[in-house]
Amino acid sequence: MGKKIIKEVEKEVMPYYGKRGKVIDKNIYGDETSIFDKISEDIALKYLNDVNIISEEIGKIDNGSEWTVVIDPIDGSFNFKIGIPFFAFCFAVFKNDKPYYGLTYDFINKHIYEAYTGKGAYLNNKRIKIKEFDPNNISVCIYAENININAKRVRMLGAFGLEMCLVARGAIDACLDLRPKVRLVDIASSYIICKEAGAIIVNKKKETLNLELDHKKRYDIIVANSKDFLKLI
Amino acid sequence: MGKKIIKEVEKEVMPYYGKRGKVIDKNIYGDETSIFDKISEDIALKYLNDVNIISEEIGKIDNGSEWTVVIDPIDGSFNFKIGIPFFAFCFAVFKNDKPYYGLTYDFINKHIYEAYTGKGAYLNNKRIKIKEFDPNNISVCIYAENININAKRVRMLGAFGLEMCLVARGAIDACLDLRPKVRLVDIASSYIICKEAGAIIVNKKKETLNLELDHKKRYDIIVANSKDFLKLI
Repeated sequence: MGKKIIKEVEKEVMPYYGKRGKVIDKNIYGDETSIFDKISEDIALKYLNDVNIISEEIGKIDNGSEWTVVIDPIDGSFNFKIGIPFFAFCFAVFKNDKPYYGLTYDFINKHIYEAYTGKGAYLNNKRIKIKEFDPNNISVCIYAENININAKRVRMLGAFGLEMCLVARGAIDACLDLRPKVRLVDIASSYIICKEAGAIIVNKKKETLNLELDHKKRYDIIVANSKDFLKLI
Repeated sequence: MGKKIIKEVEKEVMPYYGKRGKVIDKNIYGDETSIFDKISEDIALKYLNDVNIISEEIGKIDNGSEWTVVIDPIDGSFNFKIGIPFFAFCFAVFKNDKPYYGLTYDFINKHIYEAYTGKGAYLNNKRIKIKEFDPNNISVCIYAENININAKRVRMLGAFGLEMCLVARGAIDACLDLRPKVRLVDIASSYIICKEAGAIIVNKKKETLNLELDHKKRYDIIVANSKDFLKLI
């Protein structure tokens, strides 16, 4: 079903890419909601009956189901709006509050990242895994003040869920948000994908990070390919 | 001619996108040269006879001409290699050491940025200009330590020449490198485009930045949409 949704979202939403979609409202976090966020969310909701929903624009809907779907209709809205080609659709399914399935879709690269808990992570149906740690060739995405990692390459690409997938497919070593600013909707789908790709996911105290189905909580998060990476922080 | 070159470069180089092209050498700056950098540069050189050339991989060739062409075959090589969809081909022409023509090509968005000195800046043949400064809604790309701008959105996208074009087309307010690390090849084409789009280009002392045809120099650079922005630094 996730793939059906992304196909429809892509068709309806991509015409707005780079066009600075009209602001239509503020979402539950106080961010501006653009028309493309709303369109994307509405498409996803259309497919979902009787389940609980947590989404960026509408917040939480509790239908008393054992299933909860967590959606970020456009991860990287600002990028989408101004034409930076890095943004994603994020869709996660929880069963009895436990991660069950994650899907993160990179519209530009046409990368479908997917994982069921316990069954490995996939990119366009091919198994993916994290890269080996090499202390002389570290690449990271990092959102934090006053932290100095001896990385060769640092990026802030502005779509954290999709940046997590760069770790999952072994393109970079780690991504971090220690401000902390990311929310469940930003990280839920990629959390499952990264875990299944072999990543370590911890908070800034380096304790295992478990997701709670709380749409308001801000997470500090480190997604890394190894314990060796964690020693740098 | 620039457009002829980018068409051929695109055809020959894009098949390597995201494929971690084999490292074939080190360039004059000590960076690894990948096969796609070499292919791109070779195509550009094929079209250029009797002019002086400054390029990332080969350094400087002085043919005693009044014309000098400055090329970065792939601005954002690392992005290209690992599949981050943000990189460009940069091509600048100088006449008697003065900026004459700039072309920066965003392969993913298919954005051709162009400018002749004194004749305005264009994106796919449409005139572009910088955005108005709004102190409550600042977006920047920034490469610097220990600098705190009160920006709403900060990016490090890893292709400075292309990030400069985001300023030129009014997507963001400014981009800065104060480490300093960028070189002539990274900024020459977009320098001309940004100037023609109305941007202010200064060094960290806020003095007008003029380009020198020196391929080794590292620039500290601020490209901004306004004097108001410069007051923040």
